Amino acid sequence: MDAALATAFSVALPAWLVDDLDGISARPLATAPQRMSLANELADRNWRAGNGGPFAAIVVDAASGALVSVGVNVVLESGLSATHAEVMALSLAQRALGRWDLGADGAELELVVNWRPCVMCYGATMWSGVRALTIAGEGAEVEALTGFDEGPMPSDWAGEFERRGIRVSVGVGHDDAIEVFRAFGASDAVVYNARGS
Amino acid sequence: MDAALATAFSVALPAWLVDDLDGISARPLATAPQRMSLANELADRNWRAGNGGPFAAIVVDAASGALVSVGVNVVLESGLSATHAEVMALSLAQRALGRWDLGADGAELELVVNWRPCVMCYGATMWSGVRALTIAGEGAEVEALTGFDEGPMPSDWAGEFERRGIRVSVGVGHDDAIEVFRAFGASDAVVYNARGS
Repeated sequence: MDAALATAFSVALPAWLVDDLDGISARPLATAPQRMSLANELADRNWRAGNGGPFAAIVVDAASGALVSVGVNVVLESGLSATHAEVMALSLAQRALGRWDLGADGAELELVVNWRPCVMCYGATMWSGVRALTIAGEGAEVEALTGFDEGPMPSDWAGEFERRGIRVSVGVGHDDAIEVFRAFGASDAVVYNARGS
Repeated sequence: MDAALATAFSVALPAWLVDDLDGISARPLATAPQRMSLANELADRNWRAGNGGPFAAIVVDAASGALVSVGVNVVLESGLSATHAEVMALSLAQRALGRWDLGADGAELELVVNWRPCVMCYGATMWSGVRALTIAGEGAEVEALTGFDEGPMPSDWAGEFERRGIRVSVGVGHDDAIEVFRAFGASDAVVYNARGS
């Protein structure tokens, strides 16, 4: 294994998503239902395209809804287990804005995801500088319907966000999110958690 | 903000580390102290070089010590808050091996880090496919000495690893790790947690 150590890696959004960014940028995102509708739709397209799990995330200006970034889970396409939708959206937002702190200069950015983040993305959200997290749901339904392991979350996960200045909103677009997970679970798509279990 | 959505990002190891990879690859890594000695040394060099926090990680074959990847925290250099040492080492290992599951084909890979991972890297480790995690320590010393927020961890964090087939070893190279954190804390280096607190 010592032949060639990798010294860099790059990750890209799937081609279908890049091709559709003009259309996505034109969508109204003023309200929470509009924002989650986009996340749910991209999550559904993503697993059907074979890029990764049924998860999508967007970063928007919390007040105006101006779109800052779009992310989907590309674990299968990228070959990198950390490339969940939240990590993609947050990293692309940081690339677009040129800074590791999305909350710098008083910016109030919001991460919108089609379910509660897994434990990795929980931390990634916490360190990103976003000031708000909006999710369609938080329960065990996603694990039951899809087979993905979301990891052990601290019991007061939302309170830990709030204490760090990150507002949490739960429940918008819930039924649509469940439908995406149900369709994924009924398919033979790959559940990629690499735990050997 | 809708002028140009980013569609990809790339991350590289710092130049000083790339320049030294031949030397690093030649080091004996048969034992746990040898492995942690490398992690502690790279962690110390990393913050002094200004790339990011005082953290480093390596992925090795658990039995032989063959080096698979090296990572350091490059949050400041990359401008991406997710580029902690563990995410770098795990992603570069996955790039080198060409797969998102480091545990595929019966591989027994070990992640060696100079302290317990933050909550994000806890999840990143869990999803990576490594079969072992070796850390120099797990206590609040790193937060007290450096000022970094490590996030809320589940109380039985190690048991959650073990139940997923990931062995945990704590304590090797502990005093050297503390010395790195102490030196960082005594400096005026940037503590980059983006929580506005």
